[in-house]
Amino acid sequence: MGLTGTNVYPAASRRLRLGIVGGGGSGLVGKWHWTGARLSNRWELVAGALSSNPAKAAHYGREWMLPADRTYSTYHDMARIEGSRADGIEAVAICTPNWTHRAIAEAFMDVGIDIICDKPITTTNEDAAALVKRQRETALVFAVTHPYAFHSMVRQARDMINSGAIGQVRQILVEYAQEWATEHDDPESGSLAWRRDPAKVGRASAAADIGTHALHLIEFVSIQNVQQLRADFHVCGAPKAMEDTAFLGLRFRHGVPGSMWITQAAPGNYCGLRFRIYGRRGGLEWDQEAPEQLMYQPLNEPRQTIVRGHGSGVLPSAERMAQLPRGHGEALSDAWSNLYTEMAIAVEARRNGRTVPKGLIAVPNVDDGARGVRFFNAAADSHEAGGVWVDLD
Amino acid sequence: MGLTGTNVYPAASRRLRLGIVGGGGSGLVGKWHWTGARLSNRWELVAGALSSNPAKAAHYGREWMLPADRTYSTYHDMARIEGSRADGIEAVAICTPNWTHRAIAEAFMDVGIDIICDKPITTTNEDAAALVKRQRETALVFAVTHPYAFHSMVRQARDMINSGAIGQVRQILVEYAQEWATEHDDPESGSLAWRRDPAKVGRASAAADIGTHALHLIEFVSIQNVQQLRADFHVCGAPKAMEDTAFLGLRFRHGVPGSMWITQAAPGNYCGLRFRIYGRRGGLEWDQEAPEQLMYQPLNEPRQTIVRGHGSGVLPSAERMAQLPRGHGEALSDAWSNLYTEMAIAVEARRNGRTVPKGLIAVPNVDDGARGVRFFNAAADSHEAGGVWVDLD
Amino acid sequence: MGLTGTNVYPAASRRLRLGIVGGGGSGLVGKWHWTGARLSNRWELVAGALSSNPAKAAHYGREWMLPADRTYSTYHDMARIEGSRADGIEAVAICTPNWTHRAIAEAFMDVGIDIICDKPITTTNEDAAALVKRQRETALVFAVTHPYAFHSMVRQARDMINSGAIGQVRQILVEYAQEWATEHDDPESGSLAWRRDPAKVGRASAAADIGTHALHLIEFVSIQNVQQLRADFHVCGAPKAMEDTAFLGLRFRHGVPGSMWITQAAPGNYCGLRFRIYGRRGGLEWDQEAPEQLMYQPLNEPRQTIVRGHGSGVLPSAERMAQLPRGHGEALSDAWSNLYTEMAIAVEARRNGRTVPKGLIAVPNVDDGARGVRFFNAAADSHEAGGVWVDLD
Amino acid sequence: MGLTGTNVYPAASRRLRLGIVGGGGSGLVGKWHWTGARLSNRWELVAGALSSNPAKAAHYGREWMLPADRTYSTYHDMARIEGSRADGIEAVAICTPNWTHRAIAEAFMDVGIDIICDKPITTTNEDAAALVKRQRETALVFAVTHPYAFHSMVRQARDMINSGAIGQVRQILVEYAQEWATEHDDPESGSLAWRRDPAKVGRASAAADIGTHALHLIEFVSIQNVQQLRADFHVCGAPKAMEDTAFLGLRFRHGVPGSMWITQAAPGNYCGLRFRIYGRRGGLEWDQEAPEQLMYQPLNEPRQTIVRGHGSGVLPSAERMAQLPRGHGEALSDAWSNLYTEMAIAVEARRNGRTVPKGLIAVPNVDDGARGVRFFNAAADSHEAGGVWVDLD
Repeated sequence: MGLTGTNVYPAASRRLRLGIVGGGGSGLVGKWHWTGARLSNRWELVAGALSSNPAKAAHYGREWMLPADRTYSTYHDMARIEGSRADGIEAVAICTPNWTHRAIAEAFMDVGIDIICDKPITTTNEDAAALVKRQRETALVFAVTHPYAFHSMVRQARDMINSGAIGQVRQILVEYAQEWATEHDDPESGSLAWRRDPAKVGRASAAADIGTHALHLIEFVSIQNVQQLRADFHVCGAPKAMEDTAFLGLRFRHGVPGSMWITQAAPGNYCGLRFRIYGRRGGLEWDQEAPEQLMYQPLNEPRQTIVRGHGSGVLPSAERMAQLPRGHGEALSDAWSNLYTEMAIAVEARRNGRTVPKGLIAVPNVDDGARGVRFFNAAADSHEAGGVWVDLD
Repeated sequence: MGLTGTNVYPAASRRLRLGIVGGGGSGLVGKWHWTGARLSNRWELVAGALSSNPAKAAHYGREWMLPADRTYSTYHDMARIEGSRADGIEAVAICTPNWTHRAIAEAFMDVGIDIICDKPITTTNEDAAALVKRQRETALVFAVTHPYAFHSMVRQARDMINSGAIGQVRQILVEYAQEWATEHDDPESGSLAWRRDPAKVGRASAAADIGTHALHLIEFVSIQNVQQLRADFHVCGAPKAMEDTAFLGLRFRHGVPGSMWITQAAPGNYCGLRFRIYGRRGGLEWDQEAPEQLMYQPLNEPRQTIVRGHGSGVLPSAERMAQLPRGHGEALSDAWSNLYTEMAIAVEARRNGRTVPKGLIAVPNVDDGARGVRFFNAAADSHEAGGVWVDLD
Repeated sequence: MGLTGTNVYPAASRRLRLGIVGGGGSGLVGKWHWTGARLSNRWELVAGALSSNPAKAAHYGREWMLPADRTYSTYHDMARIEGSRADGIEAVAICTPNWTHRAIAEAFMDVGIDIICDKPITTTNEDAAALVKRQRETALVFAVTHPYAFHSMVRQARDMINSGAIGQVRQILVEYAQEWATEHDDPESGSLAWRRDPAKVGRASAAADIGTHALHLIEFVSIQNVQQLRADFHVCGAPKAMEDTAFLGLRFRHGVPGSMWITQAAPGNYCGLRFRIYGRRGGLEWDQEAPEQLMYQPLNEPRQTIVRGHGSGVLPSAERMAQLPRGHGEALSDAWSNLYTEMAIAVEARRNGRTVPKGLIAVPNVDDGARGVRFFNAAADSHEAGGVWVDLD
Repeated sequence: MGLTGTNVYPAASRRLRLGIVGGGGSGLVGKWHWTGARLSNRWELVAGALSSNPAKAAHYGREWMLPADRTYSTYHDMARIEGSRADGIEAVAICTPNWTHRAIAEAFMDVGIDIICDKPITTTNEDAAALVKRQRETALVFAVTHPYAFHSMVRQARDMINSGAIGQVRQILVEYAQEWATEHDDPESGSLAWRRDPAKVGRASAAADIGTHALHLIEFVSIQNVQQLRADFHVCGAPKAMEDTAFLGLRFRHGVPGSMWITQAAPGNYCGLRFRIYGRRGGLEWDQEAPEQLMYQPLNEPRQTIVRGHGSGVLPSAERMAQLPRGHGEALSDAWSNLYTEMAIAVEARRNGRTVPKGLIAVPNVDDGARGVRFFNAAADSHEAGGVWVDLD
């Protein structure tokens, strides 16, 4: 036993009303959103357009126990009707394929509903720029769901770097390695087929799908932006139309070098999103497959393992994310919960005209989302030009 | 990305109505219950008596966003009123101190409400026997919350043993090691003080509090009952009135030997519930602090690590518990969710007069609860007699 | 790259002359002795009686590249001749079965040759007492080979405990778990058959063979003696005449509790000699299968991993044992080398009438050896009396 | 306990006579050579020129217990005299700074003595080509000391890949990460100063010093040659004249992509030489800091950990390298011993006009050495040209 600490998120007075577009059926994305929302206890799912197929939309709506009259078969209807109800949804989670995000987000922004959008937020820089513009005009919340940055030990790493625990950052490695596409892209899964179709997803597949997570994570943690990159795309698993693997070189501010490895065809790697950051006074290493532990090597001292929980080296901002005492494990559902908690704080503040206290939340916004789109398009530029350095910033 | 498997729990048609007695404030237990219930998406918390102090009960009720008219200050009122509402709670989670469980459970059983009870279910064998008797009379569900048995890889281990993966079981080690009582029992915490007060908790402290989890886990996984035990109680951390540590010898069926180590004063152990089970053809090892991995050593073959997920050696009953693909981590919240899912299946079946398919769920019942009480009283018997062997079965 | 530190053993001026009795053929023990001696660079093997079978003795002598005229077929001859040569051996390593150690050691002590003896040093307390007496009379070095205590991180743990790093020691767990006897005692191996023959090895098998290592290690590291123990012997692997497994309870000074688990039938454990020691201010854990790392949990601080090498928390006495920089791994051969280095320092000092500086070496002596014999005989006493507590000190 | 297997190296009939040039004093290299030679029990160190400073040479010779008349102060004298003695050295280990290797090796080849040379064998391709030419002319053994390839589990990985355990190799990652140059190049160490002096070491520092090990290891294990590479050199630790870090892109046969990361400035990495190799049917991962374990992921099956030892998935060629049973750890000294064993087999065979059986040994030869030199010069070419792809093969 043990007790939760005193660093907690401010309490909610009520649950916000959430709608979801897409995400029904066997796919993971919609379930994750709803899982994070439920676990945070700050949201109630009250409406959805869970499929573009009306029969499926109705079926999934029943599965998710949505009211029949708020189970929509088009996002247009949903935006129109929810936007005009007194008890309409306060935010919409967009879980559809990448190339559909812009139109959906615009439809909901048009009726003043805050946006929670999957990554990448669009397939082209033009579409991303349009969303940035609309967000500026509406001043709505536009959150992008990079859940891995919401593991407590990721926040810990960022704050340690910020406070100088490893000195000046000098090199940065990040990787996101999976194995699921080694043998074949799952042929039974319609939801996967579009991920290798350039007519749909644009110029990158793995680099867009998981590379955007890696980019956001490493820039968030290291507090350094990638200024230039070069990329080589490869198919390392079964033959497929677009890359399942990418090797990237990175250049951060002041010439700090780095590398990124993205693959969906490395057997033994399940969800291996990992960073290693080294400075003049120490190093930090973290692996999403063991998210509770942060390796910290202060130079010339014993290696430390900082474990999620309260006290024992955990900083206040990371303590705030810890719902359970040390050793009572938290994992990805809990990270999604933290993300949904911080998004609730953002939405509630905007609706009440309040400002969120500085440092309380770190929800990725539309600019982060657009940056992700720039990233994979730049990677494609580099790849197509033979792996030359291209600017990102 | 990847997809969830086809082995899933049967879908729910609606959420069951849940009430909670106790659990408000800074303690963990109530939060865990509500977390598991939320994450399972099979329950709605609609009523509670969150404190025996009326002002606190009201305050916690608002914190938990309960309707004011269903926020009770006594469990008597709650049982009476909820038992007579058409939309009354269908099950009650009892999260109060151990010695109060019996009276509360009886009050709700009297009005036909299914019971979800914390462990140990009582402090004395007499009280436990009374609950067993009442459960037999009412035929209500009486579930006991041992969440650790609801990690997917625990179910996997059990089913592997059952199918002969390690041959005949020959020795069994279990331990539950924590560190929180090393320096002092948290002096600021009223909720901990009673845990060392024999007038309240009975004849054992750590052996009751976490020893009952260890007993249930090891008997569940090994499919072997402890027949005899001997125990020595110690205070290894700061001075306190009751044991924070116990060393036990175990004798299973056919003389299979084992050991149990229980401590709350072993720095470096956070929630170290671990088992190691060895047979004539192999061994299995698991640690709650890394719950996604099951070590399997088949004799004369390479050591395996079976990782929670779908396929790759995971058995169907364990796949059913996996909500996320391999590598997208699950942890204790997910185990609580699995427990609440299986309890929902049990409650729904009873209310509908249906039988749960054999092998689908493994919810600890009132007999398991009474066994836990017998266990720590037998341990106290042994300790007081100088560590002699006493019968459990 | 990197450099070795400044804490080194004093240099040797020449190599000492070593003889070996027993140890030829496929057994490990002799090879280990010779490996440790070679790697230490402080010994030259110049004579041996490697088998009691003359043809084998000659064959093994050639294999080991011994001079033909110093390859003996009886230890009597070897002691007599070597004891009278001007360039005779300065120490003899006794690698024969346990019950033969006394006579051999006495033969060499009679001619003034220092003794390096395998554990257990005898099978009975009477024989052990005789060796103690003779050692007192002759004042010769009588070293007992417990190599595991010569891993650098074991010395580190001892010195940390000594300096108060974990506060007052409050509980102590040790185990030595192997798997080789799970399926069968190797039937092709004559060298193993005697290990289960009570007419030869006395009253304990596994408890003598590996239990003596565990006892020495835990008393050495914790700087606490076992005062009382109780034991249950079991056969957990294939049927055999003597125990392959023992569960022991331990009582140290001031009632500090502990446990010891000894087994040769736990699949997945190869050479799992491990200790876990907890005090009022922290904990230490070590596993022989990962000998370079010492887990150190200072209470309320991040967990540390102290890694063998120079600096970064490694104490001078442990640095002295590190031949290679951190990360350039050392393992069991290196531990044997450290043991042979310290034995060389002891032998050289005795021969030169010098005293070894306090704290420089920690070679187990004849009293430690006799203690090991007392230990397994006491364990047998306890087991035969039904697992009662018996005194060791 | 347990027994060594039946797969062993052929026995030696006598020890070969070894000389060393360089390696005296506080440096590691000479000690390692002598350690490997001793532990292998196939060599006797009988002569040395341990320093170019005569007083130091004499001093180190005494430290190493060399005969005074075979302690030389110049390699010229040593080659001349040893080459003419009937009992002269049979091989010489060259442990001097890189740029001196060629002249020394030529001096000993001139008198028919086999060569054991540190890596890189020279600083320029011209010098390397000269050594290749001379080796061709003399047909002497010219071994290059890449000890990491002599860990048993590295041989295991190679043979598993060769036998198709992971299917067609599709991507390859290697890294060699250290931390010692983070704060500063050790200012007290003369032996390190030359490593950053281009006038001495040529065009690369870290890429030559440890990059050559990484190249040899990855080509050896993967059975794939690097055909093209690109490189960026960086100083990530304290300011210094040459690179302490390099990021490389690799292209293997058939366009198989890979990456190499070389650094001496990544705190928390001690001797982190690691490879990860992925094929269409599985993956293999290994880390020199835990050399006993090989991670093997066969696709769609549980992850395996193959542990050095006998049986349980270990292949014959890897068993042959295992001196100790599983769990009785081996590490870098043992790898050096395996290297010196295989070099002894090579030297003995050459001197006796015999051929070494195919597959018995895998000693890196002068061509491997020259390839290493080409590698770091190619990396320098690429770096200087802005990181363009350059051909290696």
